[in-house]
Parts: sequence; structure tokens; C-alpha cells
Amino acid sequence: METIKGGINASKGFRAAVAAAGLKYEDRDDMVLITSVVPCRAAGVFTRNVVQAAPVVRDRALLAEGLNVRAVLVNSGIANACTGAEGEKSCLRSALILEEAMGIPEGEIMTASTGVIGMQLPMKKMREGILKLVSSVAGGEETATRAAKAIMTTDTHEKECAVTFELDGKTCHIGGMAKGSGMIHPDMGTMLAFLTTDVLMDRALLQEALQEAADETFNMISVDGDTSTNDTLLLLANGTAKNEEIRERNEAYGVFFEALLSVCQTLAKQLAADGEGATALMEVTVSGAASVEDARKLARSVTASSLTKAALNGHDANWGRILCALGYAGVSFDPAQLTLSVASAAGELVLYEKGAPAEYDEKTATAILSEAEVRILADLQAGEESATAWGCDLSKEYITINADYRS
Amino acid sequence: METIKGGINASKGFRAAVAAAGLKYEDRDDMVLITSVVPCRAAGVFTRNVVQAAPVVRDRALLAEGLNVRAVLVNSGIANACTGAEGEKSCLRSALILEEAMGIPEGEIMTASTGVIGMQLPMKKMREGILKLVSSVAGGEETATRAAKAIMTTDTHEKECAVTFELDGKTCHIGGMAKGSGMIHPDMGTMLAFLTTDVLMDRALLQEALQEAADETFNMISVDGDTSTNDTLLLLANGTAKNEEIRERNEAYGVFFEALLSVCQTLAKQLAADGEGATALMEVTVSGAASVEDARKLARSVTASSLTKAALNGHDANWGRILCALGYAGVSFDPAQLTLSVASAAGELVLYEKGAPAEYDEKTATAILSEAEVRILADLQAGEESATAWGCDLSKEYITINADYRS
Repeated sequence: METIKGGINASKGFRAAVAAAGLKYEDRDDMVLITSVVPCRAAGVFTRNVVQAAPVVRDRALLAEGLNVRAVLVNSGIANACTGAEGEKSCLRSALILEEAMGIPEGEIMTASTGVIGMQLPMKKMREGILKLVSSVAGGEETATRAAKAIMTTDTHEKECAVTFELDGKTCHIGGMAKGSGMIHPDMGTMLAFLTTDVLMDRALLQEALQEAADETFNMISVDGDTSTNDTLLLLANGTAKNEEIRERNEAYGVFFEALLSVCQTLAKQLAADGEGATALMEVTVSGAASVEDARKLARSVTASSLTKAALNGHDANWGRILCALGYAGVSFDPAQLTLSVASAAGELVLYEKGAPAEYDEKTATAILSEAEVRILADLQAGEESATAWGCDLSKEYITINADYRS
Repeated sequence: METIKGGINASKGFRAAVAAAGLKYEDRDDMVLITSVVPCRAAGVFTRNVVQAAPVVRDRALLAEGLNVRAVLVNSGIANACTGAEGEKSCLRSALILEEAMGIPEGEIMTASTGVIGMQLPMKKMREGILKLVSSVAGGEETATRAAKAIMTTDTHEKECAVTFELDGKTCHIGGMAKGSGMIHPDMGTMLAFLTTDVLMDRALLQEALQEAADETFNMISVDGDTSTNDTLLLLANGTAKNEEIRERNEAYGVFFEALLSVCQTLAKQLAADGEGATALMEVTVSGAASVEDARKLARSVTASSLTKAALNGHDANWGRILCALGYAGVSFDPAQLTLSVASAAGELVLYEKGAPAEYDEKTATAILSEAEVRILADLQAGEESATAWGCDLSKEYITINADYRS
């Protein structure tokens, strides 16, 4: 497996388009179209929030019917969530306008939206934007990167990833892009992430692979503990790599899954590192747990702790807050067996060992916690399982961004 | 029932003492002693965090034995949490020193600590502080208020409350004080709260009453979603009011419980309003729920949402974030039936009605959200139950306080 450029366009047969429709933002791209030259099998993972955006409700229903996806229409700036019957209509109408323009049945077009909740999509501008998109579909790196930028809201940079690998002597690809910076505490996906692959694979198995990869990656990141109304992770597989169809969990499945996991993890880490106002990526690994579920809960509890996040912002080795966050995760463990350490490019240091504070140099700890990527390692000595979660620090900039986001 | 002054000293037969021991803070009171002229029945509610401070572990064990409490020793500055065997010894030794000085058995002395996690108590200073306390026990308002100030850490002001009421023609009292500003998301109590009463009551019933009151008050507040290692709520009842002993849930129990609930709610709201960096109290009421448990989960989810808290800080009627927080609370409901409004001294306004955005004046909304106490009301139309939770906004000051709290 090799990492390559090209994002969502890295997979054979996929082409994208980008347009500035002025839906909410001015003078920037805010609409994206992802198309495949042949119909795709699709897998999707969506938010578990009870309040779900109109496109999430529609996409989920389409996937349940096992549709063949030909195109995905995405807009940023307006989330089309909590918009009632009018929002549902806008979502359907957008797909119908695209159907008209491309000659693809509306039922083979998925849609996704991100941005402010509660605002209606301006349909005249949406229509103009869709027509611009249809006339500018293109392959290549540049368009893929522009697409990754166009779906951003409070993100500070685009998130892309692509890998290539071989199956049955055929060159295969998985490409992806994602966005999300606030309201990030995914439960079944992240805000918006789109993956393309040219691999041929059974539809049900594709869904299983995506769910498993999401559980280990997107569902293990947190920026602010808020699970969005719009979380959507889509994987389109068009089969143009012409590999032998993957129908079971064989060796080829393993190769594919490893590549999928790699792309998902790269994008998930990019999301966490670019959390609203973040200055550092926090990677929390809990090992020696009795079960993977325990390890995941514990690791996520630390990444979601406001106090731990604020301490990281101040480069402060305030390990008591980490222990505290482990303690309220809802998992039983023996604090007297616990060992806690921090690590980064500046070194590694044990802060707490088998139930008692360790002696360590505070300056070294501060140096470790001042790097852009900081790892927190908790060993429970209670079993063989482990899990990793990703988050970021909590800064004043987060408040600046969110105290007045709408205006 | 009438609200009176006097805090923990308002109940007959209780006297307090305050001292500056220089445990961590300089030039301020940091130790408190609460004593009763006669042995008290005690009830307690403690943190459910797996990681528990030494005094929490000891107090819980003492309460399980049904001890008669004669005194409570409290210190601020150092939490004596995550301090291993040495911390346990310090806790026991403090009680032994007090036993020696007061002639009360160590098993009738409870202790509580709050402050930095992971630091050991300096026992020489503790000893000096305890001796100062013993020589200065006094009744009255002034000492009670000094005690409420002495237990503060990042709190900006003391929290006290007392009420008086009649039982069998006897004048009875409940007095209390509390502290807590960060690491506030109680699960079985809050950081530190001490209640005194002169009512005579069955010990088991006293514990039931305290638990129920805590569930409706202290367990419904959140500052930052972090459940502390030290949460302790103690109620001491010395029976000096000479009322007929309350042994069942009769009319007298009702009068007592109403008074207890009032004191707990007043203190809990004071804690939420004085959350670290807070500029406003957020009161969230969820009505029309199928069960009280549902209503509580939903209300707490809103008070814990970083995005809702940041929006309140910016006086922004970003109701989408409130809906989002309700949606991920883990409770099923129909968003199409939901009505959401905000209210404060500046007025009341419906923002979302039966599944669709309401038309409202943004300036009026901003005015409502600019008050020091803001109410958020969500009606689910799914049942008859309701619950209220309290929180605060999330400000840059919270980051300032917590990015560098230890130094």
C-alpha cells in the first residue's frame, strides 16, 4: 500500500466538480459534485443524533433500498437540518434538478449538507450552482483539492487522503476527503467524509467494512463532545479496477480493509488536529483493557474532557484531570494498577505509576506537551485489549469561533 | 418556610471554625471545622467516579457503619486524590490529630478535601491548622460565611443558604454551604456541599431524602462535563429542634423535604452560576417528556453542550445547537413535535415550533440571551414529565483558568 495524491479523484472513473453558488459564504466555492463514469455500490454511516438533517434522512432511505449511486451533491454553509417539510423538499428538489441536468435518476443521486442549522437552502442559488457543477466535471488532483476546500466550514485547511494497492495483480485505489472542525463527537460517522474506490466488492461486505473502519477511526475522534445532526460518511465503489469481486473476508478483503482503515484514520486525525481553535492533536491510547469497548470508552472520555483539553492548551502535565476523566468514563478499573505516561516528538515520560504519582521533571513534561502532536498512554494492566482516540486542545479561539458563529 | 441568614450555623447546636494553614494558598483561610454540640446522624452522597479521593473513600466507609458524626474537617487547595497509600494515611492522621485535640473518637470525624489532584497534604501545616481550628469554634453568621469562603478554590464568591420551618410547633432549620466552579458535572453529589439541620429524623430516611434531593438539584448541574474525584454532599442532623422523630414519609417528612430541596436547589444554582469563567446561568427545563429520567437526560445534555454554552456566551440564539444537543442525549423523541423557547428578565420568545423554525426577531432574542439568568424551555409533547438542569456559558476565561490552573 502506498499513499498517493489525488483525493477523491484518485480512484479510477471518479470525477468531481466545484462551484461557488453564494449560498451563504461569498467569494468562495461552496458546492461539490462527485460523479462516477459507471454506477457505484455505496455504503454509508450516519449520525445517531435523533435530530437528523434532511439529506441524512434521504440518503439513509436510499441506501436501505440498495441503490446504485451515480453522483453525490454536496453543499457547505447551510446544513439543511431542523428545517421541517420545506427542508425535505429542498433536498429532493436539488436531486431532481441534478437529474434533469445529468440524465441520472434522482434515486441514484445522494446529497449532503453542512453548515448552519435551521436555515433553509436558497433554491434559486442551488439551481444555478448545480448547473455550474454539471458543466465543469473534471478529474485530477487540482479539482479534488478544490472540492475538499469547498466543503469546509470552520475548518482551517482541506483534508484529503488517497492510497493505492494491488488485488489480483490489478492496481486499486481508495481516495477520500472530509470536513469538520466543530460539533465533532461522531457516533456512526463524522460530519462529512466521502470516500471513493475502484475496487469491486459485495455491497453488504462493503457496508460492514465501512462500519468497522468508522468505529476505529471517525467514531474515535472528538472536538467538543457535540454529536452533529449531519454526520455522514459515504463510500462509493465503482468496480473499475476489475479485480475479482470480493465476496467474503478473504486475503483480498484484508488488503482492502487495511487500505480503507488507513485512509479513514488519516482523515479522522486530520479532523481532530484541525478542531475549532485547536493548537495540538491529542492521541489517547488505552492499553491493558479487559475489552476493546472498555478501552474505547476510556480513551474517548479523556479526549472529551474539557479540563484535560484546557490543560493541553496550557502545556500543563495536569495528569490528575486525565485520571479523573478515565474515572468517570463508565468503565470499572483499579486505579492502583494504572500507569500513565505522555509522549511526543520531545520525548516520553511516566507521570503516574501503579496507583501513585511518579517523580518526574516538570520542565520535561511541559516540553513534551508543547508539541503539535501529543500522545497520552494509559495502561490498565487488566487485560490484552487496547484502543486509540483522537482529540485536540480547548483554546480561547474555540470560544471566539463559537460565541458568534452565525453572524 | 422562610429563608434566613447563617449558613451552616443557622441550625441549632452547630458551630464552625476557620483557619489559614497555608496548605497551598497563601494569606487566605483554607481549613474549616464543622462541629455539633451533640452527636449527629449523617447522610452522604459521593462521586461515582472510579477514581476517588482518600477522604471520599474513608467517609463512605464510615457512613456505611452508621457512625454518629461529631465533626467534619475540610481543607481547600489540595484534593488528596490520586495520592495512593500516603494520601490515605494523611486523611486518617488528620482525623487522629483532631481526635486528640477535641476528645472525639476518630471514627466520628468526617473529612473532605478539594483542590489540586495528585498533591500530598503537608501534614505539619495540617496539624497546625487543626489546632487553630479547635481553639476558635464559634456560632453565628460571620463564622459561617468565613467557612463558606474558606472552602472555595476557583469559585469567585461563597455559596450559602439557610431556611427555617416548623414541625410540631418546634422551630427547625436547615443550613448549608457549597463550593465548586470547575470539574462540575456531579454524579451523586457535587464537589463539596455541607448541610446542617436540627431536625430529628430516622437515619435511613435521612439518607433517602438527601439522595432524592441531590438527584433533583446537585446532580442536575454541569459546568464542564467533568465529574470530580472529590464530590461530597454531607447532611448532619443533630435533633436539637426536639421535633417528634420523623420515621416515615408523613406530613412532617414533606415539610422537611421541601425545605431540604429548597436549600439544595439554591446552592446548586449558585454553583452553576459561578461556574469557571461563567457570565450567565443557564436553566434548561424539558417538559412533556415520557419519563422524568428522559427529561433529566435531555436537560443535562443541553447544559453540557460546549456549542450551546459558547453560543450563550455570545448571546446568540443559535437554537440549532440546542436541538442538536437534545438529539444526542440518548433519548428517543419526535423532533416534529418539539417546541423550543428562551426566556429571561428581558422576555420570552418561541424559536422553534412543532418541527420548524419559528419567525422571531433576532434583536429580541439577543436581548433575552444577554441577561445573567437565561431559561431554555423544550416541550416534547410526548408525556407529562419534566425536569430542570442548570449550567452556565463557556467563556475565554474558562480557558484562562484551566490552561494553567496548577501554577
